[in-house]
Amino acid sequence: MRWVRIEYNGEPVHGIIEGDNIALTSGNLFENPQKTGKTVPLAGAKLLVPIVPVTFYAAGLNYLEHVLEQAKAKGKEPNIPPKPDIGYRANNALIAHDEAIVIPKDATQRTEYEAEIVAIIGKKAKNLTKENALSCVFGYTIGNDFSERTWQGGDRTLWRAKNTDTFKPMGPWIETDVDLDSLETTVRVNGKETIRFATNKMLFDIPTYIAAITKYVTLYPGDMIWMGTEGHSPELKAGDVCEIEISGIGVLSNPITREQ
Amino acid sequence: MRWVRIEYNGEPVHGIIEGDNIALTSGNLFENPQKTGKTVPLAGAKLLVPIVPVTFYAAGLNYLEHVLEQAKAKGKEPNIPPKPDIGYRANNALIAHDEAIVIPKDATQRTEYEAEIVAIIGKKAKNLTKENALSCVFGYTIGNDFSERTWQGGDRTLWRAKNTDTFKPMGPWIETDVDLDSLETTVRVNGKETIRFATNKMLFDIPTYIAAITKYVTLYPGDMIWMGTEGHSPELKAGDVCEIEISGIGVLSNPITREQ
Repeated sequence: MRWVRIEYNGEPVHGIIEGDNIALTSGNLFENPQKTGKTVPLAGAKLLVPIVPVTFYAAGLNYLEHVLEQAKAKGKEPNIPPKPDIGYRANNALIAHDEAIVIPKDATQRTEYEAEIVAIIGKKAKNLTKENALSCVFGYTIGNDFSERTWQGGDRTLWRAKNTDTFKPMGPWIETDVDLDSLETTVRVNGKETIRFATNKMLFDIPTYIAAITKYVTLYPGDMIWMGTEGHSPELKAGDVCEIEISGIGVLSNPITREQ
Repeated sequence: MRWVRIEYNGEPVHGIIEGDNIALTSGNLFENPQKTGKTVPLAGAKLLVPIVPVTFYAAGLNYLEHVLEQAKAKGKEPNIPPKPDIGYRANNALIAHDEAIVIPKDATQRTEYEAEIVAIIGKKAKNLTKENALSCVFGYTIGNDFSERTWQGGDRTLWRAKNTDTFKPMGPWIETDVDLDSLETTVRVNGKETIRFATNKMLFDIPTYIAAITKYVTLYPGDMIWMGTEGHSPELKAGDVCEIEISGIGVLSNPITREQ
């Protein structure tokens, strides 16, 4: 099942994709969503970010080639994480499918995509094990952990490198029926493929992260975990369009602009 | 004016402290709060965290002695931040005045308080200057950035060191009428004073942080910025009570327990 969040009469509304239409729902998405009986065409609907989380978790360095290439770019020895220490991103930076990433005037040219699968939490969870970790997951979407690498290397924290307004595209919707091991992530810049990788070939997979997190931290419905990316991105510039496809989920596409 | 958030008939409700009573309100706290006409006694009211933010900002290293003493504890040269790079904390960790901090079973003894003033954002804000930065601030409360120093030093991120459930006490309420330069922060452990410092004597003050943040990031009503702490805490253990007072705001008190 695919859940979207759209703007309808000026308000955010969740709905279920049924063929070419969206069946609108009311009630809490994670508790008691009910179809209202209204439908709108999917084509032309204004898609919103599918969820605004209570807490925005991000795994960071979680694919081997990405760790090696990030180290190489910095001229440092690679530091492969020995355990799943989770990180964070910020809600101000979220934008939806088709919305524009806006690179600030004073950013450098070193702006890059990071293609990620996102796990959306549907149930309150504490002290899960690897075996039952996925029981708290409602579904999956796609995230672009867009990054300014000069700021990432020079600032004391990742704040503007990762969390500048518009730097976190997410969507287009939440897919609830997913076979993680069969997924493939593909990125295209201006229609040309730049990378393709097995989505689930992580250093620490989703159950491992959820088990580690929930030893100390309660996850809540609407929280989400961005799971990191593989490989290395070319530098992206104003005028480019970045598409991230995860097979079985969908395509997240965002044009890139620069602040005037 | 002092704004509290309390549990009333099982729901969170904002109210204004009037003498020994709380005048309950309805409507959005930052847009159109209206007194409902109902009052309840302040004594015995179940105080909640005064706000759950959209984004939880934290300044980190922002007082000189704290930077020096943290470096000394690690046996490293102090690294005084050259500019205001903001950090983040997580909502799962928030607890209210009088609620218990629970130290996990496997934490070390190196658990410490950090006494902080918290700026609560009341208006959407982008591209503010130092001169007009405080125009977006609704009021101020008190935060305890409780930390497990062994995890802080050893993990790749600050996640469990700073964001374990219950590690972020905040309250007791939001004070809207504050003269920042006159404030003094005092901490008492089991009634005995452990530190006293000028609250506003920061490396980068609140207007400087807000101006820097809003160059790249939009602040939203309900966001909050924890401004960092001064000095060094003794190790806290189960059975201790930690009180943080900021003159003109109030006292945030929390007992400390250990997970069984």
